[in-house]
Amino acid sequence: MVVENPYYTEAVHGPFQLAGIGDLELESGVTLSNVELAYQTVGELNPAKDNVVLIPTWFSGTHGVMRDAYVGAGRALDPEKYFIVLVNQIGSGLGTSPHNRAGAFPLVSIGDDVVAQERLLRDNLGVERIALVFGASMGAMQAYEWAVRYPERVERLGVIAGTARVLPRQIIWTQVMTDALTSDVTYANGDYVGADAVKEGLSRLSWLFGLQLVGREVWLKEHWRGFGFDSFQGFLSGFLGASLAPMDANDLISQASKWSRADVSRHTDGDLAAALGRVSAATTVMAIRSDMMFPPVEVEPQGALVPGSRFLEIDDDFGHASLFGLTPSCNAQIDAALGELLERDRGAAQP
Amino acid sequence: MVVENPYYTEAVHGPFQLAGIGDLELESGVTLSNVELAYQTVGELNPAKDNVVLIPTWFSGTHGVMRDAYVGAGRALDPEKYFIVLVNQIGSGLGTSPHNRAGAFPLVSIGDDVVAQERLLRDNLGVERIALVFGASMGAMQAYEWAVRYPERVERLGVIAGTARVLPRQIIWTQVMTDALTSDVTYANGDYVGADAVKEGLSRLSWLFGLQLVGREVWLKEHWRGFGFDSFQGFLSGFLGASLAPMDANDLISQASKWSRADVSRHTDGDLAAALGRVSAATTVMAIRSDMMFPPVEVEPQGALVPGSRFLEIDDDFGHASLFGLTPSCNAQIDAALGELLERDRGAAQP
Repeated sequence: MVVENPYYTEAVHGPFQLAGIGDLELESGVTLSNVELAYQTVGELNPAKDNVVLIPTWFSGTHGVMRDAYVGAGRALDPEKYFIVLVNQIGSGLGTSPHNRAGAFPLVSIGDDVVAQERLLRDNLGVERIALVFGASMGAMQAYEWAVRYPERVERLGVIAGTARVLPRQIIWTQVMTDALTSDVTYANGDYVGADAVKEGLSRLSWLFGLQLVGREVWLKEHWRGFGFDSFQGFLSGFLGASLAPMDANDLISQASKWSRADVSRHTDGDLAAALGRVSAATTVMAIRSDMMFPPVEVEPQGALVPGSRFLEIDDDFGHASLFGLTPSCNAQIDAALGELLERDRGAAQP
Repeated sequence: MVVENPYYTEAVHGPFQLAGIGDLELESGVTLSNVELAYQTVGELNPAKDNVVLIPTWFSGTHGVMRDAYVGAGRALDPEKYFIVLVNQIGSGLGTSPHNRAGAFPLVSIGDDVVAQERLLRDNLGVERIALVFGASMGAMQAYEWAVRYPERVERLGVIAGTARVLPRQIIWTQVMTDALTSDVTYANGDYVGADAVKEGLSRLSWLFGLQLVGREVWLKEHWRGFGFDSFQGFLSGFLGASLAPMDANDLISQASKWSRADVSRHTDGDLAAALGRVSAATTVMAIRSDMMFPPVEVEPQGALVPGSRFLEIDDDFGHASLFGLTPSCNAQIDAALGELLERDRGAAQP
């Protein structure tokens, strides 16, 4: 359904470009026609074309969020040194997404995104090799897919708070999120027409985010006071609720569906170790101590299947929401890990 | 609303008695008329009347679940030794509850339950002193209330996976659960008439239980196979879904509301340490390692405010659902702790 939604604009997310990458034959067998990827580049491609950093987006996020959280002068991902390509996943709301397409939107897979992103880099930006693909959460799923699918093209893989293959509890989560939206009577089986639809469902989703994506110490230690709120309920509605309210329900559901089917082992008949064994990139895998969605205990074992990978636990109280770069100490830990990774070469001995 | 619901019968939950305890002036100021408590006693009251064990119920549970999980020959709570009173909380579906009352059901508080239970013990069973009040989850909230409200009457307090004062994240959880039910169009603002209403909402609630109340190792290690299922989705629908499907939505919402307001510190102007400092019972506080709803890190600090209390972490994979007594090793740990507590005297030196 085409829904006019002022949220998915440069006014909100900052500048981006739209690249037409043509028709995309999806893994489902359906062809998605005239796919457009919305992306932003920061920094300059060097003559050797070996300073490319690719950053895909997470669930409900856009390139603007990723840029603000991870890119900046003096950060590990410094535009003075790197040509940073921030690319919105299909269905994110920027670029081809349910809300800007008439009719039913097909099932899209993480692999479809990576194929589309590869075309963007090669055909539109003239880039063959990636110095680093860095992904967080659903972005990590895309980053893993890159390193498994195009091992010779990815020099370094950095992932945080994500897995290469979805786990059952994540599938439950994607279903719970979807239920919160589809149960809104204004969702109307997806055929709503106004950007003001599904507001109750989006509000319910924000409470689910509070339950699952915000670290428990945020409530115990009242970290929400640092955001200027007087009550945790105020933080829930004024911060989480306000963040989600303008989003498009079908876009979110499309992303949730994609998440629920993420699995690099479909390249290797279900053998996850074989799939991740293909990765030749220098790899650092991170997880956040307080993350209830992607806890270290669930992130580390998959990361360990990448030959020579390093694992690092990030100490922060904000849970999965730590990914937004809310605390200087969290950013410093992630920057240190990415800086170390960027100094490491593929194939070098990895302790 | 009066709803005929065959779930809330002896056929499902085993034998119980109904005790009329008269009108109950609630903390809200409203009077709930002709309150009936549904309870079961197991074992015999001894002549000294000093072998009473009181077990209130948790959210969505009944006396039958509590009995099956904790009471039995050879268990710590052995009917050969103790006169065990299993009492269903108001709103549980057994005894006075929204589904068996016409009109709007008033707000009930944990304190109202404890006042009602005290009347039941005194007037109907002739019991003044309690050798042990043992509560799990919302039952722990009632047990704490007993020990704070009637310190001289409670010899021993045993709580597991519960807190004396609700924490913000629990409030979020009660709201999320409530949303799952009220968002069902057949909920009809609570004015549904058939026991077949709110089935989608109850199904959604079962997925939330899967997300939050079932330990993550159940999914990682596929413990659900031990229940005879071939897929985790089958376990979700066939076990959790089937368990919740026959329940009454208004009853569950009434309990969730009560949970969201639990706080023994309303006796002491909000001073939790002062409230729990009143407790003179020998006390053991337990939490389950894998419990995401009441993790040890949130349970232990409140328990530590009870003078001389002991804290014990129970090692089990099932999360909050460990309370159902699903594994022999979990039951053995809890029985050992309760056995030790039952040997301890109030006021004895506690290491």
